[in-house]
Amino acid sequence: MTLSVGMLGYRFMGKAHSNAMARLPMFFPDAPAVERDVLIGRDETALEDAADQLGFSRTSTDWRDVVDEVDVFYNLGPNNVHADPSIAALEAGVPVLSEKPLAATLKDAERMADAAENADVPSAVAFNYRYVPAIRYARQLIADGVLGDIHHVRANYLQDWLVDPQAPWSWRNSAEVAGSGALGDLGAHSIDLAQFLLGEDIARVSGHLRTFVDERPVPGADGGGLDAAGSDAVETREVTVDDAYSAQAAFEGGAMGTFEATRFANGQKNAHTIAINGSEGSIRFDLERLNELEVLRGENRGYETVLVTDPDDPYIDHWWPPGHVIGWEHTFIHEDYEFLSAVADGEEYAPSFQDGLSVQRVLDAIERSDETGRWVDV
Amino acid sequence: MTLSVGMLGYRFMGKAHSNAMARLPMFFPDAPAVERDVLIGRDETALEDAADQLGFSRTSTDWRDVVDEVDVFYNLGPNNVHADPSIAALEAGVPVLSEKPLAATLKDAERMADAAENADVPSAVAFNYRYVPAIRYARQLIADGVLGDIHHVRANYLQDWLVDPQAPWSWRNSAEVAGSGALGDLGAHSIDLAQFLLGEDIARVSGHLRTFVDERPVPGADGGGLDAAGSDAVETREVTVDDAYSAQAAFEGGAMGTFEATRFANGQKNAHTIAINGSEGSIRFDLERLNELEVLRGENRGYETVLVTDPDDPYIDHWWPPGHVIGWEHTFIHEDYEFLSAVADGEEYAPSFQDGLSVQRVLDAIERSDETGRWVDV
Amino acid sequence: MTLSVGMLGYRFMGKAHSNAMARLPMFFPDAPAVERDVLIGRDETALEDAADQLGFSRTSTDWRDVVDEVDVFYNLGPNNVHADPSIAALEAGVPVLSEKPLAATLKDAERMADAAENADVPSAVAFNYRYVPAIRYARQLIADGVLGDIHHVRANYLQDWLVDPQAPWSWRNSAEVAGSGALGDLGAHSIDLAQFLLGEDIARVSGHLRTFVDERPVPGADGGGLDAAGSDAVETREVTVDDAYSAQAAFEGGAMGTFEATRFANGQKNAHTIAINGSEGSIRFDLERLNELEVLRGENRGYETVLVTDPDDPYIDHWWPPGHVIGWEHTFIHEDYEFLSAVADGEEYAPSFQDGLSVQRVLDAIERSDETGRWVDV
Amino acid sequence: MTLSVGMLGYRFMGKAHSNAMARLPMFFPDAPAVERDVLIGRDETALEDAADQLGFSRTSTDWRDVVDEVDVFYNLGPNNVHADPSIAALEAGVPVLSEKPLAATLKDAERMADAAENADVPSAVAFNYRYVPAIRYARQLIADGVLGDIHHVRANYLQDWLVDPQAPWSWRNSAEVAGSGALGDLGAHSIDLAQFLLGEDIARVSGHLRTFVDERPVPGADGGGLDAAGSDAVETREVTVDDAYSAQAAFEGGAMGTFEATRFANGQKNAHTIAINGSEGSIRFDLERLNELEVLRGENRGYETVLVTDPDDPYIDHWWPPGHVIGWEHTFIHEDYEFLSAVADGEEYAPSFQDGLSVQRVLDAIERSDETGRWVDV
Repeated sequence: MTLSVGMLGYRFMGKAHSNAMARLPMFFPDAPAVERDVLIGRDETALEDAADQLGFSRTSTDWRDVVDEVDVFYNLGPNNVHADPSIAALEAGVPVLSEKPLAATLKDAERMADAAENADVPSAVAFNYRYVPAIRYARQLIADGVLGDIHHVRANYLQDWLVDPQAPWSWRNSAEVAGSGALGDLGAHSIDLAQFLLGEDIARVSGHLRTFVDERPVPGADGGGLDAAGSDAVETREVTVDDAYSAQAAFEGGAMGTFEATRFANGQKNAHTIAINGSEGSIRFDLERLNELEVLRGENRGYETVLVTDPDDPYIDHWWPPGHVIGWEHTFIHEDYEFLSAVADGEEYAPSFQDGLSVQRVLDAIERSDETGRWVDV
Repeated sequence: MTLSVGMLGYRFMGKAHSNAMARLPMFFPDAPAVERDVLIGRDETALEDAADQLGFSRTSTDWRDVVDEVDVFYNLGPNNVHADPSIAALEAGVPVLSEKPLAATLKDAERMADAAENADVPSAVAFNYRYVPAIRYARQLIADGVLGDIHHVRANYLQDWLVDPQAPWSWRNSAEVAGSGALGDLGAHSIDLAQFLLGEDIARVSGHLRTFVDERPVPGADGGGLDAAGSDAVETREVTVDDAYSAQAAFEGGAMGTFEATRFANGQKNAHTIAINGSEGSIRFDLERLNELEVLRGENRGYETVLVTDPDDPYIDHWWPPGHVIGWEHTFIHEDYEFLSAVADGEEYAPSFQDGLSVQRVLDAIERSDETGRWVDV
Repeated sequence: MTLSVGMLGYRFMGKAHSNAMARLPMFFPDAPAVERDVLIGRDETALEDAADQLGFSRTSTDWRDVVDEVDVFYNLGPNNVHADPSIAALEAGVPVLSEKPLAATLKDAERMADAAENADVPSAVAFNYRYVPAIRYARQLIADGVLGDIHHVRANYLQDWLVDPQAPWSWRNSAEVAGSGALGDLGAHSIDLAQFLLGEDIARVSGHLRTFVDERPVPGADGGGLDAAGSDAVETREVTVDDAYSAQAAFEGGAMGTFEATRFANGQKNAHTIAINGSEGSIRFDLERLNELEVLRGENRGYETVLVTDPDDPYIDHWWPPGHVIGWEHTFIHEDYEFLSAVADGEEYAPSFQDGLSVQRVLDAIERSDETGRWVDV
Repeated sequence: MTLSVGMLGYRFMGKAHSNAMARLPMFFPDAPAVERDVLIGRDETALEDAADQLGFSRTSTDWRDVVDEVDVFYNLGPNNVHADPSIAALEAGVPVLSEKPLAATLKDAERMADAAENADVPSAVAFNYRYVPAIRYARQLIADGVLGDIHHVRANYLQDWLVDPQAPWSWRNSAEVAGSGALGDLGAHSIDLAQFLLGEDIARVSGHLRTFVDERPVPGADGGGLDAAGSDAVETREVTVDDAYSAQAAFEGGAMGTFEATRFANGQKNAHTIAINGSEGSIRFDLERLNELEVLRGENRGYETVLVTDPDDPYIDHWWPPGHVIGWEHTFIHEDYEFLSAVADGEEYAPSFQDGLSVQRVLDAIERSDETGRWVDV
């Protein structure tokens, strides 16, 4: 049996998941067979080109036409397009993987989780960093009690691609389309990782959001430069999301958390870091060095830098010998392997829409806290 | 002219400052001459031994007897002893250096700042990390605009000496004596450094305090172990301060700040880190590698690891050739050099009690925020 | 036009190159089309399974039968099998990529280079580390004069997979099959990288080889354990190659070099490091962090940690946004892209067999130096 | 009883040892009392100033006049002045500490070792890096078998202060005065550390020396610049020592060693690194981060970064709490504490002149190997 896949979205995430599917046969021979069937988008020319490059058999400019024709639906569109197509697919009994954050609004996220609840098929929210071998190794250490009781979690996600005020406006700067900015795009990852690693939820938060640059030039308008007269008559559009957020958190089990994400951290490209301190040990992780995990074990004096590339590390037996490092894209291969296997086997999958909703509730609570200046229960 | 010094306190800080004074003649020949005159404490035997080792001529068990007999008064006692002796000295026209935080309570800190305001002599609060060459180098970079407009400050101070629930109770666990826990002991350093580096104050904060272990064994009672019957009839005392705090902050100039300190970060001994991101560049510092500063400059692609040990780096011409690193204690030598020089020359000194008060206001605001669950203006 | 590929060898390197070919269409759309035609090996069952997994249409147990039927020949067999099939292919006008080192002996390497010289088609030796983006970026810096005149090269390749004396014997321990041990397997990479980065050859060397464990258990014989009587009657085989080598070198342009490789560096999995110091700057690289390059530029004070993942970095525009790191396997994709493009376009390719021979001459000189105890001209 | 000290040399090393002596009473109360009695040099004015700053009671311009008047003699002069005054002191029954390397020539080193052999008092060669707490901790790990059998030692000492061809000529560039260049100045430290850590000697070496810049401007002559006519009529002097050396070594116990030192490693100020790999574990050390030791223990997967600042670490109980790092100068305090204690107690001391001779033999063998192009037995 071959699973036919419909995929909405064909840029960054479309390429990441198409690559993942294409690589399964050679590296995960027990994965279900997958046909990249139909690629969905609006710009027909770009769509045709993408389908050709990404290996899809056909295209569609309306998800309504195809969402019930496929065995699996990948929803990789902007955040405000996650809800309706995904719900339609689920209602048609088609398993869905949605990119993160689950939705642009808590309300949409709730609708999606409801739909998943009522469906008989797996849903997935694409928190791909759960599939970094070092992260899974860390999670096992925590589950095994190596860190003892957890006291502290601190998770930062630092990028710098908006530090230039002339960096162009995109949908990621629109509250309507994206829901939020650094919070939903980056913070969602941190919050999910923290809850995944601890195996418990965040109970209360205090949040802080900031927009440093209020409007940005629209790309293509006039190249983003000055006009002939030297005045700054460039067409600009308003930034309606946060450029950065921070949050303090209390976990259900008693741990303290601190979170931060920004697109203004000059010098950091993709520095997603998470550190956890427990009564018996600690871990530190940095996505820019994703093959490594720093581990403090009870019997040791300092952090041990573990290269998580040994054959018995998570997923590594599928890849290369020790020390032959994998990259960012491998997280998608592991993710799609697990999700597609769950689909083929009719089994449960996590992180599901329910897990996505759990994160969305935290995102929403952080925004409400920022608005009210008070701690908010999740 | 030789400055006679009276020093209250003879343990950790007493040793650090006595060493600093002893080393000035060889390394800072233009520093004023200093006589370690009178060492003040309560336990006569321990005091005599300390005076002998630390090079003091005499001892006193009552600061009232000697505070007006010396040219300079060093107040290195527990936080709740900072106010009265310091105020008495200032009122007697004697310059005072007080250890940090300035006081156990905001009210005491205000009294001290008032006394300093009314005195004609310099006051000092011992934020010694201002005297790390790498920190001063960083401050100059910021003042010179190398980092541009500052968007982010994140400052953590991680230690682990209380993670063991059997670690003994000390005055640092007492609200009455210490005022607060990790917040005042460690956070005061971070907050001062942040304000020093940016050259601006924190305007608003949201704080979070936690005490993980509610009571601790009293040392000496019965050795902190089990009694003969094997039951845990150890005498314990209540921990009335925070084991850890976190805070979010808004600076007057618009930067976002995140702060955290803990005595429960397993594996970290003295990890005081501060990172600052601006529109043109960034810096990162870690006290455990205090000779280094990581700098992102506008024209570069990544952080540059600068060993701040060149002859034209702050204070370095007094020490050794490039790459011959200095230690933690050197910050005290630089500090005492500056303070004693100001005393000798009758000049202003910073950080003064006023600067100490500024930090105390932030500490207080963080505590009030934690109590009320709301952002608090400083 | 589609290039049909014949590939001898189907284990580690077979998987690396098959994956590379499979990924070209999605990421390098202008690469020539490739058909994985025939996979060559001796063990029919294993071969069939591998062909199935690696995507080959058919298999052959004798390279003589197929070497002239394909458009490109990949020789990924043990070192002593590099010469004859590669020469036969070249004589049949078939371009050849051979794994490194070029051959088990200098004589074979010379025969291969002669055959390549006489052929009208490209030859390639698979020094894949030339295709790490950070390495190519480093090479450009050197070519642009950013480092000035080169004074020092130090290149180490540290692994630990033989530190256990019970680690099983394999062909890599046989002089007859492998030619040498750490020297040819790891040192060949270091020497090629050094010559590639500097753009000049090594003129003279002094070498040192060591075998720490003289014989090793044969896998499968009796499980590598003790016999029933508890005596160590395990079947073992002699280790006839070096476990580690070191070398000092003088480059043609005057730089000093130091080289070392070992399979006994406990704690290091694949630590291929190279550092170069010039009159104006320096670089440092570590394969375990292959997305990074440490660069000292003239105007800076310390090494800058550059994440070589920007769109204008070598090959990166084919992959992901800044900070989304690639892995070890990507070097093969870049390599096969360049080699197959050269084949399709009928252009020259480097590193060719001539470059492989250049490295082999250094390997041979190091061995002769070790035997004679004298410096040897390459 | 107070030990009176005579000290020849008052610059870099004079300051380091004077500081050490001045600090003993406060931090090592059980150290013998020391009087900085007489400072010896040639330039009377500079000498007077130095004596004043370094705390010496008197001065002398001829060591012959005073070498037998003191209880201990510190010989901190240039290398070619180590022998005669030290021998005279020993012959007068005065214990001697000589800076490293022991002498400018092997012959002088042998004379010094003979004199020490015949004297009844301790001799010392100032290999101060033996007194880094992390190094002593490493040595204990090796002695305890934590690293198992040692396979590899690699020790580099990288500086950059001569990379500028206009850096001025000094006695360190003169073979007559210094004996050798980077080899004796830096390499002596590496070789001693290696032998100290392993507890065994180097048996055979192959060496390589290079001088990159043949002559250098003489400071003071005309400012080191161009003359009025713009020609380079600057007075220069010949560089008669090595700017850099490398060596391969075989230790008596079978370990392989690689060594390198240079004054041309752009970007490195004082990067003395040593790495050791054994059958059960490994260590790595870097003098620029001298409070840290990276340790791989058998039961761990990666290197553990140990901050060697705990109370039970070597010498640390004399200093500060965990994580409060010490500096380069502290090695001298530990060294002088041990040497002066040996003097006061009439006990043996190591590293003695005999240990200095052992290193000198390796230095000499490296030079002979460079001259002959052959391996040389030590």
